[in-house]
Amino acid sequence: MKIVESKIEKAIFARFFENEDLLETIALAAKHSNVDSGFFFLIGTLKKAVLGYYKEGKYIPIEKTGPLEIVSCMGNISVKEKAELVVHGHIVVSDVDGNAFGGHVLPGCLVDATAELVLIAAESESLTRELDPQRNLYLWAL
Amino acid sequence: MKIVESKIEKAIFARFFENEDLLETIALAAKHSNVDSGFFFLIGTLKKAVLGYYKEGKYIPIEKTGPLEIVSCMGNISVKEKAELVVHGHIVVSDVDGNAFGGHVLPGCLVDATAELVLIAAESESLTRELDPQRNLYLWAL
Amino acid sequence: MKIVESKIEKAIFARFFENEDLLETIALAAKHSNVDSGFFFLIGTLKKAVLGYYKEGKYIPIEKTGPLEIVSCMGNISVKEKAELVVHGHIVVSDVDGNAFGGHVLPGCLVDATAELVLIAAESESLTRELDPQRNLYLWAL
Repeated sequence: MKIVESKIEKAIFARFFENEDLLETIALAAKHSNVDSGFFFLIGTLKKAVLGYYKEGKYIPIEKTGPLEIVSCMGNISVKEKAELVVHGHIVVSDVDGNAFGGHVLPGCLVDATAELVLIAAESESLTRELDPQRNLYLWAL
Repeated sequence: MKIVESKIEKAIFARFFENEDLLETIALAAKHSNVDSGFFFLIGTLKKAVLGYYKEGKYIPIEKTGPLEIVSCMGNISVKEKAELVVHGHIVVSDVDGNAFGGHVLPGCLVDATAELVLIAAESESLTRELDPQRNLYLWAL
Repeated sequence: MKIVESKIEKAIFARFFENEDLLETIALAAKHSNVDSGFFFLIGTLKKAVLGYYKEGKYIPIEKTGPLEIVSCMGNISVKEKAELVVHGHIVVSDVDGNAFGGHVLPGCLVDATAELVLIAAESESLTRELDPQRNLYLWAL
């Protein structure tokens, strides 16, 4: 385990609209509020989910056709080289029978009626990432 | 996307008792601590879950008989017209085989042994809702 | 319902390494940062999950073989008698098909590539637990 302490600066609330891409719009909210280190939570509905399952250096996409409830979505905001923003989110969706499916949030998750984001900003530059070449993942460099 | 910034005021912890209704008791905790804008997390156990799936302007109820673990519950507190408090929560429960089910928290989710609420208060009046007549949903008016 | 108000003191971020035990390492992070009252969120991957289902005074273990995505993990930090730290966490994991499984976090959940912890510290001694002898559970004493 590696650890770092930070302070909470502010809370940001954002409402997403129909057809917005979940991952892209979380990044947009973070950029809009100048958050480079923080964490987030989101509930809402999706037209379509693209869930990632990590295996041997890449994410296998699992597509689920909606409408789906976003029953849980949580993750964090950090930066990697050249100050590039990284949104790392995991999601659980559920269907008309209540069955739940989950994975890493990949591009292609499209908002249906709405999605409600709670983004908590920590002190700037608390969270940075560096490449783990063996796993082909950018991991927290604390 | 629409966005608003707020500050975090306090954290509230509440323990729920057997047979308390989840949705109702979250609202009670918010009222007790004068929270009209905020977000929450909860874990615990349920005797019975009533999960909502949104379709064409209403929530279809999905009943699951417990005991069930509340493996995730998250949502937010806001107000709509006439200062009426709105608790919007999504939940994931799991059964004796570990199978997970999810949906919108509807009335009728009854606490079993306990439920532990973490409620974070943002600045008052950060979050308000207005009716989207087409969807018959009160959505965030940011 | 019983309720207590507290303040948020700080946010702690921790990266977990391969083969670390989830429950043990969350406790380690809390001890490292002197957190005896707080709440946490975690995403990542597991080699193996041991999910608990509470029944008649004990947790039935449900083992799931990985690799698995940790799609949600949330819980809280408190103390029971003799200042012993209690990590109470619930988790949702998903497999290669996106199927989701959940339960109480038991010892034996082993980190795979990484796990990312967000731990929020509340004021010290906000959260204590006492034994409910009938249920054989340490519940919040608020």
